Amino acid sequence: MGPGDGATEKDKQLAFKLGKLIAQEGWILLSGGRNKGIMDAVSKGAKADNGLTIGILPFKDNNHTSEAVDIAILTGMGSARNIINILSSDVIIACGMGAGTASEIALAIKADKKIILLNAGQEGEKFFKNLAEKNIFTASSSKEAIAIIKRSLDKNP
Amino acid sequence: MGPGDGATEKDKQLAFKLGKLIAQEGWILLSGGRNKGIMDAVSKGAKADNGLTIGILPFKDNNHTSEAVDIAILTGMGSARNIINILSSDVIIACGMGAGTASEIALAIKADKKIILLNAGQEGEKFFKNLAEKNIFTASSSKEAIAIIKRSLDKNP
Amino acid sequence: MGPGDGATEKDKQLAFKLGKLIAQEGWILLSGGRNKGIMDAVSKGAKADNGLTIGILPFKDNNHTSEAVDIAILTGMGSARNIINILSSDVIIACGMGAGTASEIALAIKADKKIILLNAGQEGEKFFKNLAEKNIFTASSSKEAIAIIKRSLDKNP
Amino acid sequence: MGPGDGATEKDKQLAFKLGKLIAQEGWILLSGGRNKGIMDAVSKGAKADNGLTIGILPFKDNNHTSEAVDIAILTGMGSARNIINILSSDVIIACGMGAGTASEIALAIKADKKIILLNAGQEGEKFFKNLAEKNIFTASSSKEAIAIIKRSLDKNP
Repeated sequence: MGPGDGATEKDKQLAFKLGKLIAQEGWILLSGGRNKGIMDAVSKGAKADNGLTIGILPFKDNNHTSEAVDIAILTGMGSARNIINILSSDVIIACGMGAGTASEIALAIKADKKIILLNAGQEGEKFFKNLAEKNIFTASSSKEAIAIIKRSLDKNP
Repeated sequence: MGPGDGATEKDKQLAFKLGKLIAQEGWILLSGGRNKGIMDAVSKGAKADNGLTIGILPFKDNNHTSEAVDIAILTGMGSARNIINILSSDVIIACGMGAGTASEIALAIKADKKIILLNAGQEGEKFFKNLAEKNIFTASSSKEAIAIIKRSLDKNP
Repeated sequence: MGPGDGATEKDKQLAFKLGKLIAQEGWILLSGGRNKGIMDAVSKGAKADNGLTIGILPFKDNNHTSEAVDIAILTGMGSARNIINILSSDVIIACGMGAGTASEIALAIKADKKIILLNAGQEGEKFFKNLAEKNIFTASSSKEAIAIIKRSLDKNP
Repeated sequence: MGPGDGATEKDKQLAFKLGKLIAQEGWILLSGGRNKGIMDAVSKGAKADNGLTIGILPFKDNNHTSEAVDIAILTGMGSARNIINILSSDVIIACGMGAGTASEIALAIKADKKIILLNAGQEGEKFFKNLAEKNIFTASSSKEAIAIIKRSLDKNP
């Protein structure tokens, strides 16, 4: 998860790398599916290493779907689709920060999911750790985000 | 699309066959994803021929997901998820009839999708053809349902 | 419930009368809230007799809300909002027929609500009665629709 | 908006007072509608001064609806209903803090609404102000929250 229009170049580079690593693990990538920002970059990264990519779109048609999304789930529900992203994911990685991303992190805490923050900013890290210490992990690189997930899989295979 | 709890044996046999044929075409199967009725039967049919199966679940966890669903999209939205099934599908095949199925056929008409009715019953065929002649097709076998889709692909490749 | 763009003049007259009668009973009117067709006519009827009107809109702003809606619930969810109309209503009256209306009747059957069909057309009456005999009532006038509800309130006060 | 199960006594007292003040202004109160925490307390406050109260429930029946809710909108959509709360409100007051509340504040920023934080905690105030300075206001009492809204109404009547 991560910003669409507001994503920085650094965020997008982290996301592309993350997509590649997710594909290399043989994991399925689920994102918000738009042809913008983190959703687009992470999907392109995954396709660069032949991963399977799913996008849960806020729209009712494919006019703004990333070309790197294999399976487009069209909801026509706007931001109400954020909860679907969360419920359908085993682990959430948030890359960068924005209002939509913050809503997804909050919903993920409510759904008691594991969330890894990557380049979320100090205020976000503090706020969300304060809300739910046990659900929030922070990573300083895409590789570290993947390593955190793998460690947790070793414990709960 | 088709009934969960209310599916007849005949409906389930048609759905299993349909799933196999969809997989043989190399198409992706999208269903309501539950471990009941048409959703379960069609997904099992598709897996029997190595197809890729997606389920859009009304629930927020996988306690009632068909074991034949590869990718479970968990919405936690109950019947509000029906519109996602419709918007995300290129063509809708309705197998059997029930209240949930009727709502999906109606939503598919509203979204101007092509709908193929298989074993829908006379009243249903009459009603929906009367509502939207051009969107509704009827098939008397799983094979014929697939043939209708292929003919339309030849026209709109 | 009833069609927006496709409502006939007769449907709209029935709906306006229905709104008046609902207000006279002191009941709250809930509709789809748009400034079109049955939703608009029934809300205007209710306001003509000082009723309270609620609209559950598919949109995220009030650009297409009926001026006769007192309380606009904005969902931004398109047709996914249809289930909210149904779950939030004690009784559903469907006036006229269209794809959206058919989806709401079907969802109301699924939610085991009482549904009164007014000018639904023969095919619709046959189809839905066949699906759920005990949930479907037919009325030939707005007054009769109200009378059916009052009789059922006498039995289940 | 505010926590259900996790609301503190202080949060609930602030919310009750807030409900009273909202009713005194003649404004309509919209909340999440459950019989818990802030939703319950603010609705009870509004009823204590004869206000009109609306609840947008995550459930599909009224088993957990606050007795102080006049109009219950039943969505059956779980946390997907949070966006409806936001879109349907002219101004959002968040009282206390929790994961659900944080998701609503974030969605309100995305929808470009004015949000007043009451007893949100320092980390929350910092994080959300950093995300959207112009949308976030902080109040130290229920009375101040109402005053902020009235000042903004004077500017944009």
